[in-house]
Amino acid sequence: MSIDVQPVIRTLTQDQLNAYADASGDHNPIHVDPLFAAATPFGGTIAHGMLVLALIGEMMYAAHGQAWLASGRLKVRFKAPTRPGDTVTASAEPSREAGGTCEYAVQCANQHGEVLIDGRATVAP
Amino acid sequence: MSIDVQPVIRTLTQDQLNAYADASGDHNPIHVDPLFAAATPFGGTIAHGMLVLALIGEMMYAAHGQAWLASGRLKVRFKAPTRPGDTVTASAEPSREAGGTCEYAVQCANQHGEVLIDGRATVAP
Repeated sequence: MSIDVQPVIRTLTQDQLNAYADASGDHNPIHVDPLFAAATPFGGTIAHGMLVLALIGEMMYAAHGQAWLASGRLKVRFKAPTRPGDTVTASAEPSREAGGTCEYAVQCANQHGEVLIDGRATVAP
Repeated sequence: MSIDVQPVIRTLTQDQLNAYADASGDHNPIHVDPLFAAATPFGGTIAHGMLVLALIGEMMYAAHGQAWLASGRLKVRFKAPTRPGDTVTASAEPSREAGGTCEYAVQCANQHGEVLIDGRATVAP
């Protein structure tokens, strides 16, 4: 039986992007330098993709605990940029289960319903 | 023609895991509470999976720039935990190219050569 996975909802800020850059070591100016980022096709800073994807990891761990850490698989596509001020909802729908392995359709979407990341997450028992 | 992707090498510390917890909002004690973590099957704190995966994102961006941010795909499996003090090497080998889309076999490994994450990264032009 699939385990229900509860959504994680988080509003991202530029301060958080700055802190994430320090923590991850990824100081790419597209994430932390508003003047630089304004001159790119994105028109402003965007969140690190893994910061957004981290919401999926957090959500899957909350439901599956150490099984997720020990055996989790992710297949994702980055579809649209996440900007400071965006409220991101990570969510999961069970899509398949076989031999105790649970597969979910997962996504992150912003407050406009735009899909930022989508894909599949799989966890073995 | 595939673009060469240069490895990213980083040593993770507990301080970094703590900072990452603050930045990502994921304060799971398996990552930040050594006493709690010592009593789990992991025997100690382990890095957030997305912190390790972030090295792959950073590496792919360094080679592909905004094309990675706009069209990147990842398919990965978390194979082993990463511990504070581990030196992680993220690396990529071109595996396929078609219609300008580049696919790489990617992995993160620790200083013992143990594979922590492996999978595929794809970027369209």
